[in-house]
Amino acid sequence: MAIKTFIVHASMTNMNLKSMISDYPGFPKEGIIFRDFSPILRDPAAMTFAADEFARYFDPGRIDLFAGIESRGFILSSALSSRYNRGMIMIRKAGKLPGSTIKRSYELEYGEGTLEIQTDAVSEGQKVMICDDLLATGGTARAAGELVESAGGVIAGYLFFIELTGLGGAASIMGYKYTSLVQY
Amino acid sequence: MAIKTFIVHASMTNMNLKSMISDYPGFPKEGIIFRDFSPILRDPAAMTFAADEFARYFDPGRIDLFAGIESRGFILSSALSSRYNRGMIMIRKAGKLPGSTIKRSYELEYGEGTLEIQTDAVSEGQKVMICDDLLATGGTARAAGELVESAGGVIAGYLFFIELTGLGGAASIMGYKYTSLVQY
Repeated sequence: MAIKTFIVHASMTNMNLKSMISDYPGFPKEGIIFRDFSPILRDPAAMTFAADEFARYFDPGRIDLFAGIESRGFILSSALSSRYNRGMIMIRKAGKLPGSTIKRSYELEYGEGTLEIQTDAVSEGQKVMICDDLLATGGTARAAGELVESAGGVIAGYLFFIELTGLGGAASIMGYKYTSLVQY
Repeated sequence: MAIKTFIVHASMTNMNLKSMISDYPGFPKEGIIFRDFSPILRDPAAMTFAADEFARYFDPGRIDLFAGIESRGFILSSALSSRYNRGMIMIRKAGKLPGSTIKRSYELEYGEGTLEIQTDAVSEGQKVMICDDLLATGGTARAAGELVESAGGVIAGYLFFIELTGLGGAASIMGYKYTSLVQY
């Protein structure tokens, strides 16, 4: 298995993925370093590698839906649902979804954010993998998970491209499986 | 060819896709009927059918990048870039992209919107298929196209799930190839 892994990944590693992420200190504001995964999206080989890496952490046959957190989370959830022939659902910022919905607010650095899901997005007992680009404090991820469960779904786990390990996000989703491809 | 098309699509048609779209009159405000494609996203067979339908209108081998217009356009661009092993780029609402960018404003029903692209999103001459969920007045689509061209790309065409034909969107992108799967 070790040899196989070596061969499959010979042309790319998570370190290569990290080297493709562009850092923008001071964006969107002083004191923040924006980690931009756009160069990975532009490169099909890198995206294929990323999808394969994610797939080491779940059995696609046991996932019903990939949920994307608006808006960059839509990219990962859509790519994986397309690749593994599964459904995709949207967890959106408040006020954008029609019909019967459930809302959940969570703390941001300043003030709060609110996420929303349609009540019929998930059928009772469906296994939902929650996708976002970034795990920071985990407030968004946790709220998304609560929405999935409120709608009747079972959280299969969480997938993130990037994790800012110093911000305690893993603790916010404790008890659930999660993985990130690149850590800072 | 006609027979092949019949066999391939025997289990689903664009009419079936239309029947899957939920209508919400009065959302987000009085006088608007919100056309919700969430049920299509949730259903892998419907999404596969939709992707196949789109692929009748372009040769994946001649597309370099699928550009998604924030935020629901990310879903289609990501699904197609994953399916056809191409790159994906983001055209975002203003203020969210780091680094060197180009902005373009366009008229909305009330006020104006602004879209933004990173200057290095596209390499000179790359062929870019622009994706969004909805073609309405076409202002957003046109601004997105101008951004792709300003960044050095060539517009391969436009893909939309839904087209509101009474709003003149097709005229806004005249001269470019486009298709929509469901029309109202």
